[in-house]
Amino acid sequence: MADEHDITDAETSETQSEEAHEDRAYHLERKTVAAILFAVDAGDSAQLTELMEPLHPADIADVLEQINAFDRRRLIELYGREFDGDILSEVDESIREEVIGILNPDVLADAVRELDSDDVVDLLEDLDEPQQEAILDALEDADRVAVEQAMTYPEYSAGRLMQREVVMAPEHWTVGEAIDFLRNSEDLPDQFYHVVLVDPLMHPVGNVTLGKIMRSHREKPLIEITEEEFRTIPVDQDEGDVAYAFNQYHLISAPVVDADGRLTGIITIDDAMAVLDEEHEEDILRLAGVGESGLNDTVRETTRSRFPWLAVNLVTAVLASLVIAQFEGVIGQFVALAVLMPIVASMGGNAGTQSLTVAVRSIATKDLTGANVWRVIRREVLVGLVNGLIFAVVMGIVGLVWFDSSMLGAVIATAMVINLVVAGLAGTVIPVLLDRVGVDPALASGAFVTTVTDVIGFFAFLGLAAMVLI
Amino acid sequence: MADEHDITDAETSETQSEEAHEDRAYHLERKTVAAILFAVDAGDSAQLTELMEPLHPADIADVLEQINAFDRRRLIELYGREFDGDILSEVDESIREEVIGILNPDVLADAVRELDSDDVVDLLEDLDEPQQEAILDALEDADRVAVEQAMTYPEYSAGRLMQREVVMAPEHWTVGEAIDFLRNSEDLPDQFYHVVLVDPLMHPVGNVTLGKIMRSHREKPLIEITEEEFRTIPVDQDEGDVAYAFNQYHLISAPVVDADGRLTGIITIDDAMAVLDEEHEEDILRLAGVGESGLNDTVRETTRSRFPWLAVNLVTAVLASLVIAQFEGVIGQFVALAVLMPIVASMGGNAGTQSLTVAVRSIATKDLTGANVWRVIRREVLVGLVNGLIFAVVMGIVGLVWFDSSMLGAVIATAMVINLVVAGLAGTVIPVLLDRVGVDPALASGAFVTTVTDVIGFFAFLGLAAMVLI
Repeated sequence: MADEHDITDAETSETQSEEAHEDRAYHLERKTVAAILFAVDAGDSAQLTELMEPLHPADIADVLEQINAFDRRRLIELYGREFDGDILSEVDESIREEVIGILNPDVLADAVRELDSDDVVDLLEDLDEPQQEAILDALEDADRVAVEQAMTYPEYSAGRLMQREVVMAPEHWTVGEAIDFLRNSEDLPDQFYHVVLVDPLMHPVGNVTLGKIMRSHREKPLIEITEEEFRTIPVDQDEGDVAYAFNQYHLISAPVVDADGRLTGIITIDDAMAVLDEEHEEDILRLAGVGESGLNDTVRETTRSRFPWLAVNLVTAVLASLVIAQFEGVIGQFVALAVLMPIVASMGGNAGTQSLTVAVRSIATKDLTGANVWRVIRREVLVGLVNGLIFAVVMGIVGLVWFDSSMLGAVIATAMVINLVVAGLAGTVIPVLLDRVGVDPALASGAFVTTVTDVIGFFAFLGLAAMVLI
Repeated sequence: MADEHDITDAETSETQSEEAHEDRAYHLERKTVAAILFAVDAGDSAQLTELMEPLHPADIADVLEQINAFDRRRLIELYGREFDGDILSEVDESIREEVIGILNPDVLADAVRELDSDDVVDLLEDLDEPQQEAILDALEDADRVAVEQAMTYPEYSAGRLMQREVVMAPEHWTVGEAIDFLRNSEDLPDQFYHVVLVDPLMHPVGNVTLGKIMRSHREKPLIEITEEEFRTIPVDQDEGDVAYAFNQYHLISAPVVDADGRLTGIITIDDAMAVLDEEHEEDILRLAGVGESGLNDTVRETTRSRFPWLAVNLVTAVLASLVIAQFEGVIGQFVALAVLMPIVASMGGNAGTQSLTVAVRSIATKDLTGANVWRVIRREVLVGLVNGLIFAVVMGIVGLVWFDSSMLGAVIATAMVINLVVAGLAGTVIPVLLDRVGVDPALASGAFVTTVTDVIGFFAFLGLAAMVLI
């Protein structure tokens, strides 16, 4: 590790220190990938195994994602029986089917049997029917039943996310009884942080940390040392809301309960963190009009995922053109209008996107609510007005100097103010309304907001020009 | 809690089930906020305390964020001595200074004394000098020294994020020795999940979970039951990279080491998750050209944070206008060009934003690297070509039908293909280059990419038109 650092530092010493940190944080070096590809080219499986051995399964998954499909197949075939289940869990869903298709059925079966049931569920979610069957068949009976049961919960719900193995204790137990129980249990989960206390009806009533159990006298009743912060999660709750609750309330693990409030599983913070990361990815891509997609999608898949948004934008753009077409006469007389009009629309579009992004993000973090929506709308409109006035002065001067026409300057200045105010209003109101009617504001707001700012921008500028200049 | 759910479900039964879930997940109800404001209006501090009592500090912080500054002051004054330190930690930095300014110095001192030293550090980071002094003065001597020492680490580094209280044991200890030590320690941290093993030079050599300690025989050496996954974090590492490592390697806690590799603190996953969330917020806002800002910023602050991006965009838009101005002659003859030209630029801008967002996100998750950058660029260009051809056909037909000119149709079709290919290229290459020279691609890519697509879009369309139509 010390070696690795030294080399990295030497390579990046000329760039900013931030860059150096980033490289140091990321344990998968570019030359490791190159060395792996070299071993694959040489067909040297001993060398490949040696190179892969120190890598975390998540890093091996990254290697598979970064190389092309041809090398991927050769690597997996050469790696052979060394391929383990965690790599399959870590690999991006965009290439998961491909990887499973390459794996020898025996290797796949071994790999899958190593995984916890919640990881198998996660794996199955994105696969086609025949591949799902192949994996379910590879499992032992008890595991298959557990996985099939988990699959009965809705997609992206707490039921799919949870582990079914919970360390629990009756609420009347003492610390001593818990310690004896833990020391004598054969099949405790690999990682657990709390003992969940349950009443006789299996309703969870509290969490006790292992640290507290260790520090307390054997006679102490567990119920007296439960954590202050304790929340249960309904089994059908959306996984995004689960992640939100973990982040908001600093939960480490939380019991999952069925409709009758009975304990059915447990979710831990590492799973919640992974969901939080995925949700953010979705939000950021949706805002840009990129559907579900990965860096490894083919040209065909990517084209298909980008097309719908561009099609919507084409309709929007044609709408704006129809507005411009109404003013062909005045544009024919004053070509300067054609030169200046994109400025008004573009500024409106950008200001609208700013307001919209703040609104979408605030809705996602539940910070924008009924209690403050009017205050935020008022603020956005005022900000639009102030920025509009500043840019109106600038553009008024530009119009005056460039085209030597004070009327043209006045027209573009007024249109700028109007469009930036409209942008602030539309950028906030549209996502709020979409959210109220149950549409994801990240997905749909952009098209609406730019339509509004384009149409209003061209209409205000050209309409005013038609009134004033003719 | 059962009551709360029933009411929520009844209220939202008409909307989509997703909405209902969301409301259920969020424990701060709109009517709770209304009731709190009612108590504040009435000056009823008993009622206020009763309403606030069941709320998590994070929810109380949300209440403070959602109400206006006038109500905020009255609420804090009425709540008086009940105000505790965790609320201060949870409250958004945009109103933190204001809240601290309102608090009675005695209340502030009590609140701050309750906090862990890492939370105090987090609090201090965003405050002005005099407020920092006030808080440091409130601390007891030992805590103040600890906080001042943490503040010597760079901002947003692991050193600022870590807790200094680490539960550690010499590497040669047995399970029994560890258990006796833990049971006899007076001042263990509230939450801890691992015992860190250290060598005689204080270099961390492994993590042992409390669960493993509980399950093992007293004679078992700790070194034999360490976790497989063990990574140390340099004290000067950027907190974003720390969060990345926790998510990538599924860490629960990780020891922080100084330049000599000696243990100086520990970071736990809940802190890493909070950083991950903040980093995402920054990325999403930067992509939209919104500087650091909160929902509670004033009109003046918001205007200032939005202005720079709009100013950059104005320069961009004027550049595009200069391109248009070169073709005033041909526009004067064929006004249809003015009607259609924004379509080409707008489609290019959107396609560029799609490519750019995918690239920025992939750089942030370290999925886009030297190993696959050429493959991704080729894909983006091909996707631009395919989508360009599809939309070229559509626009060619629109141009032909609308303006009855096959030449105009051919011009817009060709310009569309050119601009979408350029968009795919620029949308990928620009963020990659910015990242290479150490500039945050989320912050700056947008302006460059839309400049390119606007300029190329107008130039290709009007230039072709000038060649073909005149």
